[in-house]
Amino acid sequence: MTEHSLWRFSRALHRAINERQLEDIEPLLDDEVEWAIFGPIDLFSFFGSRHGKAAVLEVIKQIGENVRVHRFDREQIMLGTDSAASMLRYSLTALDSNKPISLRIAHFAQFRDGKLTSFRVLVDTFDLVEQTVGYPIHLPRMVAV
Amino acid sequence: MTEHSLWRFSRALHRAINERQLEDIEPLLDDEVEWAIFGPIDLFSFFGSRHGKAAVLEVIKQIGENVRVHRFDREQIMLGTDSAASMLRYSLTALDSNKPISLRIAHFAQFRDGKLTSFRVLVDTFDLVEQTVGYPIHLPRMVAV
Repeated sequence: MTEHSLWRFSRALHRAINERQLEDIEPLLDDEVEWAIFGPIDLFSFFGSRHGKAAVLEVIKQIGENVRVHRFDREQIMLGTDSAASMLRYSLTALDSNKPISLRIAHFAQFRDGKLTSFRVLVDTFDLVEQTVGYPIHLPRMVAV
Repeated sequence: MTEHSLWRFSRALHRAINERQLEDIEPLLDDEVEWAIFGPIDLFSFFGSRHGKAAVLEVIKQIGENVRVHRFDREQIMLGTDSAASMLRYSLTALDSNKPISLRIAHFAQFRDGKLTSFRVLVDTFDLVEQTVGYPIHLPRMVAV
């Protein structure tokens, strides 16, 4: 049984982020890959959409310049033939401040011939924002309970 | 071919929220259902974890008392035999302020005998927070780019 494309991609992505080595991930990206991380683009410039291998390699490089991954737990996983979705809990460090950040993400990935063609990531960004700015953001209670 | 449990659950959930009718959803919840919406619990008290049918019915009722669903687009979907994951874009109204809210969620659902046993939802909450409080939250730029 062949290894699912997700595992190879996941290993290469984490190596790219933590060791700033792009050579493993480069051949796993389709030339026309569509990439999006949904979150507050004002906070992290590597959030948002990217199209094409060069733009995606650049954004992975930016992520590696800004955070280090300490651990991640894959809490939920669904694997299709050429697709995968997971929910993960990450422990990171912001490199500039050396501050720990824990966050949860969900991703949907599509592959073709073992290469990533689409990657859409949703980040539990509110949690992230509070931890990154280092103080709680005041929120009015909006609901009648 | 039998309809996937997700579709029946999704219809019943939206009916429960918009029409405040819980009778369709009640038989689709396992007695021991595990439920979690990850987001800023200070803002919406219906975020967070719930266990068991009664607690989940109560939280669905709370959601219906606070928001109305106008439309949703299922951008990504993965279906397994007894599981499903989707990413959706929602247009809502906050009922107290009549304010429009658009947000993106990802969910992972598990079913057994057609009943929901596990539902984990991640909300793009930062976007939600800004729209709900009605003003942009100032964010320092944290990254070197």
